[in-house]
Amino acid sequence: MSAMAELLAFQRQTEALAQVMGRLSWDQETVMPQGAVEQRGEELAALEAVLHGRRVDPRVAEWLAASNPETEAEQAHVRLIRRAYDRATKVPADLSAAIVRTTALAHGQWARARASEDVASFLPVLSEILSLRQQEAAALSGGGDAYDALLQDYEPGMTGAALDEMFGVLRPRLVALRAAVAESGHDPVPLKGVFPKAQQLALSEELARAFGYDFNRGRIDEAVHPFSSGSGHDVRITTRVDEAEPFGCFYSTIHEVGHACYEQNIAPDLTLSALGQGVSMGVHESQSRIYENQLARSRAFTCWLYGRMRDRFGALNVQGEEAFHAAVNRVAPGHIRTEADEVHYNLHILMRFDLERAMLAGDLAVPDLEAAWNDRFLADFGVAVDKPSNGVLQDVHWSAGLIGYFPTYSLGNVYAGCLHQALRRDLPDLDAALATGDPSPALDWLRDRLQRHGGMRPPRETIEHATGAPVGVEPLLEYLDTKFGEIYGF
Amino acid sequence: MSAMAELLAFQRQTEALAQVMGRLSWDQETVMPQGAVEQRGEELAALEAVLHGRRVDPRVAEWLAASNPETEAEQAHVRLIRRAYDRATKVPADLSAAIVRTTALAHGQWARARASEDVASFLPVLSEILSLRQQEAAALSGGGDAYDALLQDYEPGMTGAALDEMFGVLRPRLVALRAAVAESGHDPVPLKGVFPKAQQLALSEELARAFGYDFNRGRIDEAVHPFSSGSGHDVRITTRVDEAEPFGCFYSTIHEVGHACYEQNIAPDLTLSALGQGVSMGVHESQSRIYENQLARSRAFTCWLYGRMRDRFGALNVQGEEAFHAAVNRVAPGHIRTEADEVHYNLHILMRFDLERAMLAGDLAVPDLEAAWNDRFLADFGVAVDKPSNGVLQDVHWSAGLIGYFPTYSLGNVYAGCLHQALRRDLPDLDAALATGDPSPALDWLRDRLQRHGGMRPPRETIEHATGAPVGVEPLLEYLDTKFGEIYGF
Repeated sequence: MSAMAELLAFQRQTEALAQVMGRLSWDQETVMPQGAVEQRGEELAALEAVLHGRRVDPRVAEWLAASNPETEAEQAHVRLIRRAYDRATKVPADLSAAIVRTTALAHGQWARARASEDVASFLPVLSEILSLRQQEAAALSGGGDAYDALLQDYEPGMTGAALDEMFGVLRPRLVALRAAVAESGHDPVPLKGVFPKAQQLALSEELARAFGYDFNRGRIDEAVHPFSSGSGHDVRITTRVDEAEPFGCFYSTIHEVGHACYEQNIAPDLTLSALGQGVSMGVHESQSRIYENQLARSRAFTCWLYGRMRDRFGALNVQGEEAFHAAVNRVAPGHIRTEADEVHYNLHILMRFDLERAMLAGDLAVPDLEAAWNDRFLADFGVAVDKPSNGVLQDVHWSAGLIGYFPTYSLGNVYAGCLHQALRRDLPDLDAALATGDPSPALDWLRDRLQRHGGMRPPRETIEHATGAPVGVEPLLEYLDTKFGEIYGF
Repeated sequence: MSAMAELLAFQRQTEALAQVMGRLSWDQETVMPQGAVEQRGEELAALEAVLHGRRVDPRVAEWLAASNPETEAEQAHVRLIRRAYDRATKVPADLSAAIVRTTALAHGQWARARASEDVASFLPVLSEILSLRQQEAAALSGGGDAYDALLQDYEPGMTGAALDEMFGVLRPRLVALRAAVAESGHDPVPLKGVFPKAQQLALSEELARAFGYDFNRGRIDEAVHPFSSGSGHDVRITTRVDEAEPFGCFYSTIHEVGHACYEQNIAPDLTLSALGQGVSMGVHESQSRIYENQLARSRAFTCWLYGRMRDRFGALNVQGEEAFHAAVNRVAPGHIRTEADEVHYNLHILMRFDLERAMLAGDLAVPDLEAAWNDRFLADFGVAVDKPSNGVLQDVHWSAGLIGYFPTYSLGNVYAGCLHQALRRDLPDLDAALATGDPSPALDWLRDRLQRHGGMRPPRETIEHATGAPVGVEPLLEYLDTKFGEIYGF
């Protein structure tokens, strides 16, 4: 076998083992017996040790050195495998182990601190995590920017400076949009009632099918936090049900279907290779968000959904297609990121990005984090934080050591804006299909232009290849201004 | 770290990875999407390659050579780890791979042959499997008996000659018992009716709890073939439901609970070690069979079950405790092993043992297998085989390469007979508890005497330690003669 063939065969086994890791996570969140938690920890650790051993296997370096990639695909394979090898070998094993150990403990401390509204009790472990990630960033960056080094795990090729530039344009426009909505004097009637669980799950499944989810290669279960798991021919999603609030179930299902379809639609010849997954967190989020927002929260699609909901649940307190569309897209100020509407969502993210970047750089001391959070929240949202569980303690990410992850959520929205502008240009009759509950023209466009290519191109190039235009924030802002201007009458 | 400590730490990771393999199998049989089959094959193969690499890791031999086991437990660890290492290193890798490849293909060929009643189409691959297993046996045995070499995978320490001696006593006595039942003129009224699935599953769960299954460390799902999966703190079982025949659901649940409780009750300090699983297939089967038969099919327990079934399902066509007990234990001649009653079951196994042993030795040619099967069936069961799916094609085992596995079923029944005799001696009031639906005195006895010790002693010693008496077939035969003599009046 050539070095290239050996490299790809070795990588294929590694990818298969990484899929096994994903199956264990799915199992843990959905069906695992409670009492298995500790033993599962050992099972995961043993498999992680195997994966780590493969990532730093010296043969990978030898094969990489001896490989002579010829096609575009071979070059992409080599690029991604080399990046993973460099990353894995740069960080000392004891530092990696300390991060795993500390974040495992931190999860419980964060959960207890949040439950007891006690920020101070969480700060020591947060400081420790920050210090460990700073050391890791130093090992990875070779003297370069620390935040950029961490960002590469989630969004290869992206930099803090580039995000700063985009978010610097987004933030004032979103603050202004929020203010315009608040000052419009409009407040759509929210949906109220009791929506039985079985009916919600049935409509949720119907929506998943409509959005192209292949049940032959997936399944839907319930879990506390909705997620999508796996690649290739086994991509499972979860959803959640609140009988008083059915949109949560429907739109989180469609969101996860966006993630899952990206994985399911990658070309089969890329399965179990370095190119066989979504290329970055940002591009992944662009798929989940365009499915959920630009498509499923569009006026045309909500008209169809209004009819389906009346078929399933009988008469609603919200009357008429316009009122229903406004209820789906109702803007409501709130403290919690995961419950935020399209206007507020990115303001949550931009704040976290600035705070974590300042902490990592040493410009914001951990004991000052809560005050900085509360000041910024008041400035951007016009509302004070009432308690830490509604503020700095609301998200799990920092306790898990995820620094550099948050901005990919907003980047995903920016990408979704670009993709939506391009597909609307190419599909002038899309609304006619959406109004019959059929998003397939848009899904076909996304599959053909973006999803099937997996990791063939770097993230930004992936978007630009699909749209034929440079990435920018303007399409997202125009979409938001137009949509909410129409709903709120400004 | 000492060599012993390194050996045990390495083994712990191997056991954790073996548990991961078990989780994947559970997933495949219960929740995996259909379309994931091929990709799952690659995931399993990648993990199997990791496990194989650990089993033949030269460091294991070094640690074994340098270890100085002091306690009984350390000696047991070393004995089991050495056996696994010797086994894994004796068989050439290409032979192991050929067995995996051939049996994977053979499964589909067997299923198609069975569906089309076409024995001839299955014989070529059966010959190939036999040849591969003969080569493997030669590699393992070092000139010793081929069948004994294969038997060690399922029942360490057992020999074909020792089985021959036991089964030589069993067979004529079982044939005589079968004839006595047939000639008794009695035929209990079988249970008839429609028993709704939800009610069957609810009573099935109640029975699982009564038999000590810990739902905090397990769960019950439905699957085509009931099974138990996993060790330690995550031991899951499956059951099946036929609305016309509820005993299948109840007794297969209790059977699997017997397997699962053996795993759940092993002492926690043995978890994820070489001693942390049931010690052999035969001892495992002794637990499932004593739960299912000697306990749950006893007169005392069926009296209680009669009441619970009337509570759940209303009036039954079978009236009275005696008639119900007879219906549960009804002896019915039939072709299919998995549906056989206690009188016929071991006759099925003894036949398979003799046939596979003769094939492996070269005394029975594969093309003559069907005729040999049919002759033997007529001799032992007094009924002719009507079609291959009711005869030589009924079991999956040979297509999976499992030669040496069948006799452990009957050995499990022999062991269960020994255990039952001993626990009845120690628990004279057991029937009073069973009559209230409470088998816990017997379960406590089994946990304390046998289950908690895991792999500490070899299989036969495990049984003899529990009973304080040598293993023999007489207790099983006395139990069967007494029980069926009472029911059938001879």
